[in-house]
Amino acid sequence: MLGNSFGAAFCVATFGESHGPAVGCVVDGCPPGMELAEEDLRRDLERRRPGRTRHVTQRREDDEAEILSGVFEGRTTGAPIAILIRNTDARSRDYEELRGKFRPGHADYSWWKKYGIRDHRGGGRSSARETAARVAAGAIARKWLAENAGVRIRGCLARMGGIELPFESWEAAERSAFFAPCAGMEEELAARVEALRRDGDSCGAVVRASAAGVPAGWGAPVFDRLDADIAKAMMSINAVKGVEVGAGFAAAEMAGSAHGDEMTREGFLSNHAGGILGGVSSGQDIEVKIAVKPTSSIRREMRTVTTTGEETTVSTLGRHDPCVGIRAVPVAEAMLALVLMDHALRQRGQCGELGTGGG
Amino acid sequence: MLGNSFGAAFCVATFGESHGPAVGCVVDGCPPGMELAEEDLRRDLERRRPGRTRHVTQRREDDEAEILSGVFEGRTTGAPIAILIRNTDARSRDYEELRGKFRPGHADYSWWKKYGIRDHRGGGRSSARETAARVAAGAIARKWLAENAGVRIRGCLARMGGIELPFESWEAAERSAFFAPCAGMEEELAARVEALRRDGDSCGAVVRASAAGVPAGWGAPVFDRLDADIAKAMMSINAVKGVEVGAGFAAAEMAGSAHGDEMTREGFLSNHAGGILGGVSSGQDIEVKIAVKPTSSIRREMRTVTTTGEETTVSTLGRHDPCVGIRAVPVAEAMLALVLMDHALRQRGQCGELGTGGG
Amino acid sequence: MLGNSFGAAFCVATFGESHGPAVGCVVDGCPPGMELAEEDLRRDLERRRPGRTRHVTQRREDDEAEILSGVFEGRTTGAPIAILIRNTDARSRDYEELRGKFRPGHADYSWWKKYGIRDHRGGGRSSARETAARVAAGAIARKWLAENAGVRIRGCLARMGGIELPFESWEAAERSAFFAPCAGMEEELAARVEALRRDGDSCGAVVRASAAGVPAGWGAPVFDRLDADIAKAMMSINAVKGVEVGAGFAAAEMAGSAHGDEMTREGFLSNHAGGILGGVSSGQDIEVKIAVKPTSSIRREMRTVTTTGEETTVSTLGRHDPCVGIRAVPVAEAMLALVLMDHALRQRGQCGELGTGGG
Amino acid sequence: MLGNSFGAAFCVATFGESHGPAVGCVVDGCPPGMELAEEDLRRDLERRRPGRTRHVTQRREDDEAEILSGVFEGRTTGAPIAILIRNTDARSRDYEELRGKFRPGHADYSWWKKYGIRDHRGGGRSSARETAARVAAGAIARKWLAENAGVRIRGCLARMGGIELPFESWEAAERSAFFAPCAGMEEELAARVEALRRDGDSCGAVVRASAAGVPAGWGAPVFDRLDADIAKAMMSINAVKGVEVGAGFAAAEMAGSAHGDEMTREGFLSNHAGGILGGVSSGQDIEVKIAVKPTSSIRREMRTVTTTGEETTVSTLGRHDPCVGIRAVPVAEAMLALVLMDHALRQRGQCGELGTGGG
Repeated sequence: MLGNSFGAAFCVATFGESHGPAVGCVVDGCPPGMELAEEDLRRDLERRRPGRTRHVTQRREDDEAEILSGVFEGRTTGAPIAILIRNTDARSRDYEELRGKFRPGHADYSWWKKYGIRDHRGGGRSSARETAARVAAGAIARKWLAENAGVRIRGCLARMGGIELPFESWEAAERSAFFAPCAGMEEELAARVEALRRDGDSCGAVVRASAAGVPAGWGAPVFDRLDADIAKAMMSINAVKGVEVGAGFAAAEMAGSAHGDEMTREGFLSNHAGGILGGVSSGQDIEVKIAVKPTSSIRREMRTVTTTGEETTVSTLGRHDPCVGIRAVPVAEAMLALVLMDHALRQRGQCGELGTGGG
Repeated sequence: MLGNSFGAAFCVATFGESHGPAVGCVVDGCPPGMELAEEDLRRDLERRRPGRTRHVTQRREDDEAEILSGVFEGRTTGAPIAILIRNTDARSRDYEELRGKFRPGHADYSWWKKYGIRDHRGGGRSSARETAARVAAGAIARKWLAENAGVRIRGCLARMGGIELPFESWEAAERSAFFAPCAGMEEELAARVEALRRDGDSCGAVVRASAAGVPAGWGAPVFDRLDADIAKAMMSINAVKGVEVGAGFAAAEMAGSAHGDEMTREGFLSNHAGGILGGVSSGQDIEVKIAVKPTSSIRREMRTVTTTGEETTVSTLGRHDPCVGIRAVPVAEAMLALVLMDHALRQRGQCGELGTGGG
Repeated sequence: MLGNSFGAAFCVATFGESHGPAVGCVVDGCPPGMELAEEDLRRDLERRRPGRTRHVTQRREDDEAEILSGVFEGRTTGAPIAILIRNTDARSRDYEELRGKFRPGHADYSWWKKYGIRDHRGGGRSSARETAARVAAGAIARKWLAENAGVRIRGCLARMGGIELPFESWEAAERSAFFAPCAGMEEELAARVEALRRDGDSCGAVVRASAAGVPAGWGAPVFDRLDADIAKAMMSINAVKGVEVGAGFAAAEMAGSAHGDEMTREGFLSNHAGGILGGVSSGQDIEVKIAVKPTSSIRREMRTVTTTGEETTVSTLGRHDPCVGIRAVPVAEAMLALVLMDHALRQRGQCGELGTGGG
Repeated sequence: MLGNSFGAAFCVATFGESHGPAVGCVVDGCPPGMELAEEDLRRDLERRRPGRTRHVTQRREDDEAEILSGVFEGRTTGAPIAILIRNTDARSRDYEELRGKFRPGHADYSWWKKYGIRDHRGGGRSSARETAARVAAGAIARKWLAENAGVRIRGCLARMGGIELPFESWEAAERSAFFAPCAGMEEELAARVEALRRDGDSCGAVVRASAAGVPAGWGAPVFDRLDADIAKAMMSINAVKGVEVGAGFAAAEMAGSAHGDEMTREGFLSNHAGGILGGVSSGQDIEVKIAVKPTSSIRREMRTVTTTGEETTVSTLGRHDPCVGIRAVPVAEAMLALVLMDHALRQRGQCGELGTGGG
């Protein structure tokens, strides 16, 4: 019943609601001795932050993370690392109308049926605001993986609202306000987002996350396969409806002779497997894609019912991303980091070493 | 590090290798008082069984399951239910040549890097033979869910080797040797499988699993979302490379105004969500699709290396399914049953009741 | 590797160090709909609070708990409840001398060997300050158990520094600054504590914790027996060296014919079992005793070594309880509450109901 | 809800009832590459076996353990190790009379209240027969710990029926049919057991378990302290009512200046802590004592009630140990081995190495 925690050896528990006092997390199992300060969490939090560009939600949160424990004189001690991010720009009155209505595509109805009570303000616990805590925890994992195993985790937008974003480089993705891995498309993407905002509508996206330098040998058959844990991690992100590893659904259309990644002394000749064989990393790049549904909070009027069963319509007036897929990029990276970190420590526990750097 | 177990409240641990003495499982947390006998496991094991038709692997296993514990005078006691399935038709000599080679697309290389030792006979622990234990455990979950919550879990083949299988009815799927949900395609599918067998090649498939009658309220935000646990469950099945819930990847191409499932007093007007909102069941049918890669064990020669790093080729002569996706249908149903059962008990634990029947 | 969390269905993770910014906890799995406010945590925190009387440590902490999440309009929502308690009176300079020395009886040496780094200020994470977070979490469990199952949890001091404290009533224990369950001994106990303080020494204690009204049926054989989980919970409290359930070590000296609790239509004729049979509650009072070692932080000079291996002596000048056993009473109650709450929800999950009130 | 499994990194799940087809276990997380065969389990199973001497129960079980998985060509593979022990001498008719009665001191009443169904034959799942599976799993842990960390785990009887057994040597304990750590007391102990058998009564015992060679640094603060996990492990053994670590309850009577283990360059000057400081091993011997209540199954008539609430008497005629404490010795050793193994792997996972050999 640990629904709000993730990981067996490197375990993250998050807490907090969109319009409560704060969101945050507790990270248990972090190896001792790593340098860590609030500054190390800032880059990823900044990349996820609302209000960062005019293409994402205009809610303005500073997202200042405070480390409350687990760090002594600048180094991790092995004790739990608690991180607190206060909510500062929560305008609850925007949501008063939603107290008695279920928004289509939202957790409103199902959570109300589950708990018999719901915090209607901005989705409460079901809000994407919770992912700030994941990103903070992911930054710790990412730092340790980079320093101790040479793992580099990156993400980008692969599709947005039907537009294909061809991959050119990770550097391009870093420079882009849309995490677009190619130059020259910013204007087209911006125009699309502005058109959606004008129309009171939204669009979906496909996000790619990748990890290079992962040693062969991470993953725990048979249920805690590396790809199974990645699938769970990704599907646990708000609005995600699909996950692919390697060739993904395209694999279903291929012949075995074309799909199997042949090997030579120089290594694998292809990577249809997405870096995972039999649930265990092969040393190739881990490749993941996720489908993000269009933002459910839109200005367009939708049919719905009230908590007392009457028919009505709803139109969401809060400050929302027309495409939540954009800000899902750093969240997907964070979740990939958490899975890899967990399996790195598990591998070292059972087999005695992390393994040597991947292909 | 419980890599070989699944579930928090209804927990299944499996064990066994393809060519060891047996496979089996231990189910912990089953509610007491349910009638249970070996007979109850037989239908699903039979549907998954190798050698059942000539379209699947010709290995002939009786798959006789013996219940070793947890049942007294025909009823579950609440104690762990251990199930034993002896391996009877394991022809290990078929695999002698593979002792020193890594088969492309298989766990061979990655598991050897992880553990430094590998059981080369039929893939050992990474073999799909392990899924017999999952199907046995899933049969227990399915029975309890049907009797106590009115849940009906079904599966079918949606695509095979590029052939679309239009959905007509679950009954058709039950009658079909291919779990095809439509009449009149058996010959075409049989011909495709025979052609692949002749060519020493294989093909992928898309499998659909569905659960009707699930009450609203199952699922545990935020990490153990119902869809997140389903994604993990499905991706943990051998050869699965992608998972979709509801609209899946199609959602990434939709507008928010088209995707959100509107509600009236009669219920939802569509089911793009696949029966899950905010990680919690909504009362609609749970809808899942998975991509199964083509069988990696093929007769076609593939380039590979030996455990000592020399280049060679490999051709798999064992008795293999040209399309593992076919037999993945009952496995996907079993995994869906395990996830739902787990969350049913978790819901009852935290919130006091299972909830009332779904839409 | 969830070393800092406790419970399977009602899960508490604590964080924080003695001289860091804060201690706190995250409670996951709390049933929704219960009224909860900071006020509800205050009574137990106050009972555990340092500086409360002159018989315990003179460190003065307000122990104001802030609820950061999981409560909406005064009721629990089913989401994680995060609680933050700022440290306000942490005088780190008292500890500067201890930076390079291992205090006998403390975690100093073993944690340094484990982590290679240690927060020497007041024991850091190993400080009893961490138990404030447990007490806050325990207050939630205790409230739910009282309201939903009629369970009453109480504790008292049974022995202190060789003095036997005969049991008269729980009310007496509530009135006593020493949690003494009998009137008229306050002066003798106060004199003992003052004498120890004067001598720079400390003494041990035996604490009793009891739960009345527990329904028959709580506990999960075979490893998660109710008594096994209680034993773990109690032994996880700082300074505890022994745990007894029911007759405890006296049972080892008894004949079977004297020990077995006979039954009549009116119920059990004795309670040597301490309310637990075969790891499951019987409906009788749950009875637990724990041995608390004498405070390790004493002014008396003790022989020890430095982190570089040289011999030296150490004398602890901080503000410490001469008998940590006194303040262990509310902590033991809290841990008992956490175990019972966890098993209440587990029982309801597996078997469908909490059970009816105990004997 | 994993009540029947134990351990986070080295996890053992047991199954089986006293009079069902078999008992057994599944061990998940075992490091790969260790030599293992049925022969390695035999010594400990033999020491626990019923019918071994005439001082213990006369039920005759061969306790032949079959390894079903996880071992390939004589070495562990990292996959789950399943172990099966068939029940061969289960005389269920001995128990027919007990079908409708609750035996005092047994799990009968509480399990029936919990599950609403019970296997009355020999206690079913609550029988000490289950501990055979623990001993088999413990033998694996013990072998790995000895080979990889130099840990030696031993046990003996410390008291039996009021008789003190002074400690002379572990070798004496090995030679003794009573695990008595001293020579020359066999006759006195045998006479006591025979007298009890004649009287239809039973007696309790105190068992000591010890681990030498444990490196400093094992244990996971704050809830999964090494001593907390040991307390749980020991209290989960049938009939155990108390657990002490190091000085145990005697610590409650000591002064701090006497209790704290002082250090010099040669190491600790005493071991009141029992080898554990702040929940983490210190390198000294781990010292544990447990109180085992007298066997509840006695021939003497006891008052009780039937399942329909009528008063009656019960007298147990099965073949039972007059002192279950004797056979608890190898079980306590096994549980200590399981805890240490779990924390060894956890330590390696989080901190990178097992640590160097203890004091």
